[in-house]
Amino acid sequence: MERIAIIGTGLIGGSIGLALKGAKLPEIEVIGFDTERDAIQEARRRGAVDRGAPSLVESVRDAKMVIIAVPPLAVRSVMQEISESLAEGAVVTDTASTKVEIRRWAQEFLPEHVSYIGGHPMAGKETQGIKFADAALFKDTTYCVIPSPQASEGAVKSVLGLVSVLNAEPLFIDAEEHDQYAAAISHMPLVVSNALFSLVRNSPAWGDIAPMTAGGFRDVTRLASGEARMSHDICATNDSAIVHWLDRFIEELRRYRELIQTDRKGLFKLFSEAQLQRDAYILGERPQRSPATELPSTKDAISGMLFGGLIASKMERFEKDMGDGKSKRRGVLDEDD
Amino acid sequence: MERIAIIGTGLIGGSIGLALKGAKLPEIEVIGFDTERDAIQEARRRGAVDRGAPSLVESVRDAKMVIIAVPPLAVRSVMQEISESLAEGAVVTDTASTKVEIRRWAQEFLPEHVSYIGGHPMAGKETQGIKFADAALFKDTTYCVIPSPQASEGAVKSVLGLVSVLNAEPLFIDAEEHDQYAAAISHMPLVVSNALFSLVRNSPAWGDIAPMTAGGFRDVTRLASGEARMSHDICATNDSAIVHWLDRFIEELRRYRELIQTDRKGLFKLFSEAQLQRDAYILGERPQRSPATELPSTKDAISGMLFGGLIASKMERFEKDMGDGKSKRRGVLDEDD
Repeated sequence: MERIAIIGTGLIGGSIGLALKGAKLPEIEVIGFDTERDAIQEARRRGAVDRGAPSLVESVRDAKMVIIAVPPLAVRSVMQEISESLAEGAVVTDTASTKVEIRRWAQEFLPEHVSYIGGHPMAGKETQGIKFADAALFKDTTYCVIPSPQASEGAVKSVLGLVSVLNAEPLFIDAEEHDQYAAAISHMPLVVSNALFSLVRNSPAWGDIAPMTAGGFRDVTRLASGEARMSHDICATNDSAIVHWLDRFIEELRRYRELIQTDRKGLFKLFSEAQLQRDAYILGERPQRSPATELPSTKDAISGMLFGGLIASKMERFEKDMGDGKSKRRGVLDEDD
Repeated sequence: MERIAIIGTGLIGGSIGLALKGAKLPEIEVIGFDTERDAIQEARRRGAVDRGAPSLVESVRDAKMVIIAVPPLAVRSVMQEISESLAEGAVVTDTASTKVEIRRWAQEFLPEHVSYIGGHPMAGKETQGIKFADAALFKDTTYCVIPSPQASEGAVKSVLGLVSVLNAEPLFIDAEEHDQYAAAISHMPLVVSNALFSLVRNSPAWGDIAPMTAGGFRDVTRLASGEARMSHDICATNDSAIVHWLDRFIEELRRYRELIQTDRKGLFKLFSEAQLQRDAYILGERPQRSPATELPSTKDAISGMLFGGLIASKMERFEKDMGDGKSKRRGVLDEDD
């Protein structure tokens, strides 16, 4: 029996648990811990974990893999607290939206005998908690994988196995790059969505404005329904990249503003380009990352790793996709730090 | 046989046609015109119009109601061209996203014997054209109604009949108010969505960034897939309100930026408020408009108007809703100009 601990059985941790249990891997036991007792009970009831642990420290005892799925700032204290109880050679990973700061904590608090590999599933919902957990949450989404330089090859393979069980596509990336890019496509848009909502909502005319709102307003402001703690922690752990992208965004807004006032032809050109480019983007014409060279063969990944019992066909499909260049990946395994 | 002309058989005009035909009103003939021959043919094929007119001028001949469903700037030339061919006492309405400028054109170009009533269905899609038309597009959405001071009561009732056939809820509002509010909840967000997309899309790192994009980025940038001509025309006909809201939005972004850098507690409070308020908004706790007093009784509306054949039960339901104060409305019928 190999044990996997999930710390934080909310939307993300709960969904990972459901996917792990749903894969019906033999010899895998999933232990859950959450500071909210209700969240553990519900995770058990829904079958996302085999059992709950009575304490954080208990949850990681003898675990081969520890998955930390708590808000970014809480990762720090979790790492501190579990540090001495981690099993020899354990794989520690997390799902937080920012990676540089968290890697620093891993270096500071985790013992040398464990392998830390940062993770970030590019999936989510604006709804929170175990009751919205879904085994299919990660299906066909990108899962960023950021191994620390000290991580063993076996540990990397274990995380790839996890990503495969989630039906997600792994994307190797370094922590700095990750935080810059996540600021551009996720964190800055989160602030934009909140700011747009709070501005209009707090207008004295809101009572008259609200009945006119429709799908456009709802979509653009959707991220404002995200959990405040999470939004706060993201800003707290990726502030400089977010501020950088906010400044660039304000400049871009000024460019549109200028064109609206002085150059309608230029404005039309800009709208036309954006429309064409976004249609192409939605149709899936996304640029491919350069092919990896350093990525470990997935054949090796089947043996001697945590998910030894992983269904072979799943790994074969995964391997085939990688051979086709279909998987997104980069050869940055040894670029980190 | 009473004739209704739809000028512009795209997404909006086509959807109105489908709803009109779908209502199986007796004695109503729907004539379509579009500068694109394919759009008329497709509208006929889909049953959105009974027949296409060979020319713009021909389409409005003997029409009791003329629905102009073309991009904002094109409304001007349509009004100019049809002016002399409009039947005595015809009702002219449009579906454009801005209303002040268009009301000005109506005053300038339309003959005194017709009634102009501005309209704006708060519904749409980022996809364009008759092939995406849908009779249910307007179901349970708000339909802004902006009568000109010269419009007859019968004409107002006819437009209310149309709104009822579309299963939308009428919202009486004046043109200036409409353009300010629409700038806040639709036009400024349209610019924001475009600017966010164009900024990130044109980043030199886009090739590496794109594989990380997920639902959040897609939702916030959805409006960038809107038709460029439409986006341009909206900005061209509501520039000062849009610039005003853009300036306020940039200020709001600066407020978040400042809090990110200097006041994390304040930032958390702001995110928390936005989350609570948006959840309440999505749960439908929208403020109601003040009840109307000048709104014509819908009982009167059944007799002597264009939609004389309108199913009585539909009007009764509508009337009941209004009696309940369920319909959104304001007593601004005689406030316009």
